[in-house]
Parts: sequence; C-alpha cells; structure tokens
Amino acid sequence: MAKAPRANAVVGQSGGPTGVINESLVGVIKQARKHDEIENLYGAIHGVAGIAGGDFIDLYGLSENRLKEVAKSPSAALGSSRDKPDERYCERILDVLRRRNIRYFFYIGGNDSANTANIVNLMAAKAGYELRAFHIPKTVDNDLLVTDHCPGYGTAARFVACALMGDDLDNRALPGIKIDVIMGRHAGFLAAAAVLARQREDDGPHLVYLPERAISLERLLGDIEAVYRKLGRCVIAVSEGICDADQKAWAQKLSVVQEIDSHGNIQLSGTAALADFLAASVKSKLGVKRVRADTFGYLQRSFAPVRSKVDVHEAAGCGAEAVRQAMSKGGGSIAIRRVANKPKYVSEFFLTELAAVAAGSKTMPDEFINAAGNGVTDAFMEYARPLVGKLPKTVYLGNGRRV
Amino acid sequence: MAKAPRANAVVGQSGGPTGVINESLVGVIKQARKHDEIENLYGAIHGVAGIAGGDFIDLYGLSENRLKEVAKSPSAALGSSRDKPDERYCERILDVLRRRNIRYFFYIGGNDSANTANIVNLMAAKAGYELRAFHIPKTVDNDLLVTDHCPGYGTAARFVACALMGDDLDNRALPGIKIDVIMGRHAGFLAAAAVLARQREDDGPHLVYLPERAISLERLLGDIEAVYRKLGRCVIAVSEGICDADQKAWAQKLSVVQEIDSHGNIQLSGTAALADFLAASVKSKLGVKRVRADTFGYLQRSFAPVRSKVDVHEAAGCGAEAVRQAMSKGGGSIAIRRVANKPKYVSEFFLTELAAVAAGSKTMPDEFINAAGNGVTDAFMEYARPLVGKLPKTVYLGNGRRV
Repeated sequence: MAKAPRANAVVGQSGGPTGVINESLVGVIKQARKHDEIENLYGAIHGVAGIAGGDFIDLYGLSENRLKEVAKSPSAALGSSRDKPDERYCERILDVLRRRNIRYFFYIGGNDSANTANIVNLMAAKAGYELRAFHIPKTVDNDLLVTDHCPGYGTAARFVACALMGDDLDNRALPGIKIDVIMGRHAGFLAAAAVLARQREDDGPHLVYLPERAISLERLLGDIEAVYRKLGRCVIAVSEGICDADQKAWAQKLSVVQEIDSHGNIQLSGTAALADFLAASVKSKLGVKRVRADTFGYLQRSFAPVRSKVDVHEAAGCGAEAVRQAMSKGGGSIAIRRVANKPKYVSEFFLTELAAVAAGSKTMPDEFINAAGNGVTDAFMEYARPLVGKLPKTVYLGNGRRV
Repeated sequence: MAKAPRANAVVGQSGGPTGVINESLVGVIKQARKHDEIENLYGAIHGVAGIAGGDFIDLYGLSENRLKEVAKSPSAALGSSRDKPDERYCERILDVLRRRNIRYFFYIGGNDSANTANIVNLMAAKAGYELRAFHIPKTVDNDLLVTDHCPGYGTAARFVACALMGDDLDNRALPGIKIDVIMGRHAGFLAAAAVLARQREDDGPHLVYLPERAISLERLLGDIEAVYRKLGRCVIAVSEGICDADQKAWAQKLSVVQEIDSHGNIQLSGTAALADFLAASVKSKLGVKRVRADTFGYLQRSFAPVRSKVDVHEAAGCGAEAVRQAMSKGGGSIAIRRVANKPKYVSEFFLTELAAVAAGSKTMPDEFINAAGNGVTDAFMEYARPLVGKLPKTVYLGNGRRV
C-alpha cells in the first residue's frame, strides 16, 4: 500500500442512531488529530446526503470539553440518513470528495453503510482517485457479520435489561401477564438481553420469543398459560420481528408495516399493534383479567441516562481504530474480536473486508436459543453479560418469611 | 390526643408502583425503629389484601444494607393492591388489627389509599378501637389534592424528560413527525414534564397535549403541520387521557379501554392504539412520510436507573414524617409544602385530613397551560424543574457553521 497521502477526511453517521454512535464519532476526531496526514476533518451533515451536497462542518475546531459533551449525547450529532446511494448519487459523492481533496472517508453505520463505503471505494479506484473508505460498525440489533458484536448493542441491551428488571418487579407487585415488545426485525439479540434482568429463581422474563424461531399463536398462548398457572403471573419478552408458524412476521400480518426504506428494510418499529394484538389474544383465550403490553420503541436507542461501559469504550475504540488503519490500508470495516470472556472480558479490534460486512446480516446462533424456542441458553448469557455490564441489585420482600 | 400507645404497626403499599415508593417504605421502617411505642412493624403483602388476610412479614429484622437495597429497588417491595375495601372487607381488616394489637396503620398510595385509611380509621373509632391511620402520598400522575406535589412524580417526570431529550435528538438525526404518548388519565403533569427536555431554541417537544384541554383532531393536525412546515420536523408529547372537542377521551373512543378497576379508575395504560391512531392520522392527512409514535407505558413508573434526588429525599421524608405524626396525632395524610423555589428549592412536610385527600384528584392549574392549549407556561417550568433536577447537557452539531 502506498504511503498515506496528506489530504482531508470526512466522517458521517448513518441509519438509526444508538447511545454510543457519537462515541465513535469522537473516537475518529481524537485519533485524526494525531495524524498530520489528515489536514482537515469534515463532519458530513446527514450522512451521504451531506457528502453528496458538500454539507460539511469543521470537526477539528471543537474544544476538548465540547467533544466530551458530544460523546455523551444520545443520537447522531451530525444527523443521520437512510439514503441508499445509486450510481448517480455516488458520482456526486466522488465529485465532492475530489473537489475537497478528501482522501479518507469514515462511515459509521450498519451493513448498508459498509455497502455504501464499499461502492464509493470501488468507484474511486475505477476512476483512479486515491480514496481510503472505512466502515465503523454500529447497530442496536447486533446483526453485523464478521464482528463478535456491534457497538450500540451493549447500551441498548442494558436499557432492555433494566426495563425488564423494573417491569418484572412491577408485575410481582400487581400480578398478571405482561408482554414487552422489543426492537429486532430479524435478529433477536436485543429481546434476548431481557433475560439479564433475572436475579431470583422465579424472576421474569419467563418467556422470550425471537425472530429466529417461528411460533404459532397457539403455542405461544400455551407457554404463557403454563407459566401463569405455576407462578400466578408471567412476563414475556417479544422481538418485534417474531414470525408465525408459516414464517411470516406477525407484525406484517397485522398490517402495521409502516414503510420500506430505500435499502429494502421493513420498518417495524411502530409495532404497537403487535403488543395490543398479543394482549387481546391472551386476554380472550386465557381469560386472565390483568394483561398489559408495552412496546419499548425508540427509547431503546435514544435514552441517554443508560449506557454500557464496555460499549462506550468499544464504540470510541472502533472510531479511533478506523483512523489508525487508514494510515496503512486502503479501506475496510472495523470488527471486534473477543479475546477473553471470564473472569475478565477482553476484546481487540481487527480489520475486515467491506464486502464481507456489506454482504448481509447475522441472526442469533442456534446455541444461544433454548430447545423449546422460547428462551435463551447459558451460552447467550455468557456472551451478553460483559457487553451489558453489572446491573443494580433489586429486592422483593413479598416472598419473605411470614410472621 | 391521648399518649401514643405501645403497640404494633403495619405498613402497606397500594396502587401503581413508582420509582420511590420503596423509599417511603424504608422511611417508615427507619423512623419506626426510633420509637419505643412501635413494638413490631409488620409489612402487609399486597396492601389491604395482606392486612385483611394477616399476610405479614417482619420489617424490623431487615439489616441496614438490606434497607438500602430495598429503598433503591423500583416497584413496590411489599407487593401492591388495587382492592377497594367495602364494609365487610374493612371489618376483616379491623379484626386482624385487633388480634395483632396493631394501633398504627401506614398506607402508601394515591387518593384511593387515603380513602381506605380514612374508612378504616372511622370504623375503628366507631368500634372504640384506638387506631392511628396515616396516608403517605405516592403517584406518578401528581394528582393528589392539598399537597404541592406527590412523591413519585419527580422521578417519573425525570424519566419522561430524559426520554424526550433523546427522542428529540433522534428526530433531528432522522427528521419527521414523532408522537410520544405519556401516562396521565386526568392530569397532564407528567406529559407536561416533557418540556424540560428542551435545551435549544428549536428543541422538542414542540407541542404538548394535556387531558385538561380538549383538542379536536383537526386542530391537532393543524398545529403539527404548522411546526412541520417551519422546522421540517415535529415532536409531540401527548397525555394518554387527551380528550376530543366533545370532552370524550380519545383512547376511549378508540375502544382501547382495557378495564375499570374497583375504584372506578379507567385503565388507559394500554393506549398503544392511541399512538397508532394519531400516527396514521398525521400520515394520511398531512402526507408526511416519516411519522412514528411511541407509548412509554410502564417504564415511566418502573425504570430503576433514573430517579430524581429531590423525589427520593421527599419520598423517604414523607414515610418518616407519618411515623413522627403518629406519635401525637390520630391520623391524617402527609403533604408537601414548597417553602422556597429559587435560587434553592426548599420544602417541608405537613399533616392534612385524610378526607381532604380522599375527596378527589387534582388537574393542572390554568396558569401552567398556555393559551393555545398546546403547551405549558414558564410557571409550570419553574414548578417542575426542581422536582425533576438538573438534566445532562446534550449536543447537536448539525446546526453548526458550514465549511
């Protein structure tokens, strides 16, 4: 590889924000400042739309204190985008990069963003324009290929675990059946994290349903009834993308699909109807009076007070690593390798091909899902626990010795 | 009043839990230990149901460390109840109190709980049984009479403000229209707290709809359109109990009323249909593509990681104050008086009649609601800010100077 050119760099954020996507941004800024090769670092406003339109702000001018505030802020500080650049769009991008002498392109996002970075890199190579395009991973769904896990997941998973922790105690206080619908269109990692809430033998969530395992309404109701008959209550964590026995997503059957974005992603986050449908089904079929359902919605990716320490650290690290790699490589996606899990979690970053990450998405491996398809395994717990971090201890006195 | 008798005491928790109802419980326990008059302190499991059934645990036996854990736990550590005791039920309660030599009854809950404490106290007096029944306020709705505000409100309001803070930044990153449905059947205090999220001139929520001001769908859509045309986006906070121009609750019109409890309270918390209905209306009438709606649900009262310091302090204080008052008074409800608001917030506790709190509930006063009925006033901000506490600073870079 040729020596890193002295030129400008641009960084953008893409797709649904996470609680730590700004940590990755600040990771890029801080590391870029250390390299004379990067003369100016531009922030593209609203991702590729900002690059194509030359809509940039200067990121070197931000004070240390300001950077700290940015890193801690939820959502995407540069604005985000769901645009999927076609050839014409990419030509405009390349044109702007050329005019601005931008030779480094850092794009923080999911697999669609890896794909965009890959296309722009290939087009630049074809045009004989030296460009180094890097993808920095982020997603609350944890569904990127190659990497052990994704920045953004640990923080969203911590939110979900804390939510279930409180919700299960609420359900003990006023017993009944509670259904919580959790983000995850195709991958159940986030809903699965609900199990980390458990502290006592009979704590919920008692059942977890994932998009990876189709479930008929009949079986689902049967599972709930069994728990309810035993404990007098039942808390259920459900991925928004769960499928009926015919493999069709329940949310789609209920016609609550709101739209399909330019990447072909089906938007299921407005799945309140799924929660209401499940609650109504439980109520009418099982004859239980107190049935409630909540859909956690955007809080899962935007609620600022809850973050995972490991996630914060790794998100910033992925940003910095992309800049370091850009000094000697022509492009790629940053991935995380788990070096050790117990007693101390240790991870390291490595570079993978953009095309490998762009190629598709990941779902929960079989060894993380129980045989009945209504819960997770210890292997998943061990996988997820260090990413989420230690949770506060809770107490319920109602099981205490009677006097 | 006669000298406080040496006898046993019971404490129970009632209604929907809050983030600090266990602080009040621990406040009672710690203060009771200081008074020799209270021989044993029993915890009633599931409120009045536990008292009527003699289902008690010993609360003096808990270690200091355990008490700390209880205080911090979300939900009601003793379990809760929505039972409304009728005369027969109250006779059973009185019978248990008598057999256990319980002369002190502390009941943590809303106005229904004040009513229960009042009835039991009156029945005891009629029966010539010396009893001192006290109500300790709690509610996330902030709708109790007499008191300046209720323990539980500040913490729930902090959750809502943090939620809107993140959600508004999310909406900047991916602009569109976002509707958040917030708890509050008759009183809009909790939805109103969403405005505390604002840090920048054009921050959301841009519109706030409260049960206190009826609003037609036409006007609501008109308001949203005006903001959207100006800012290119709009974030709206909506109380679950908002009413149509004919004063009927929207949620009821949409037939999502799940049930009516024994106190006659309509259960609106499963109001996901309201969120979906509003989103669909905005989408079809305004032709805006990106419209999303979330219903915050039980997270508002059970999400452990977020609490207001003032709320924690006052919840514990109300519990302790009830025990102190019981040493010289025959019964009553603890209320909070705001002594100073700026520059430093100062409050004190005082005793009020059980009947005064039992009599009904409070809504937002006119001076807290703007003239258009779609927002709040500075007076509300000053009222709510100290109860919620300082919020983390956030940054959005997308408005920065272009280069």
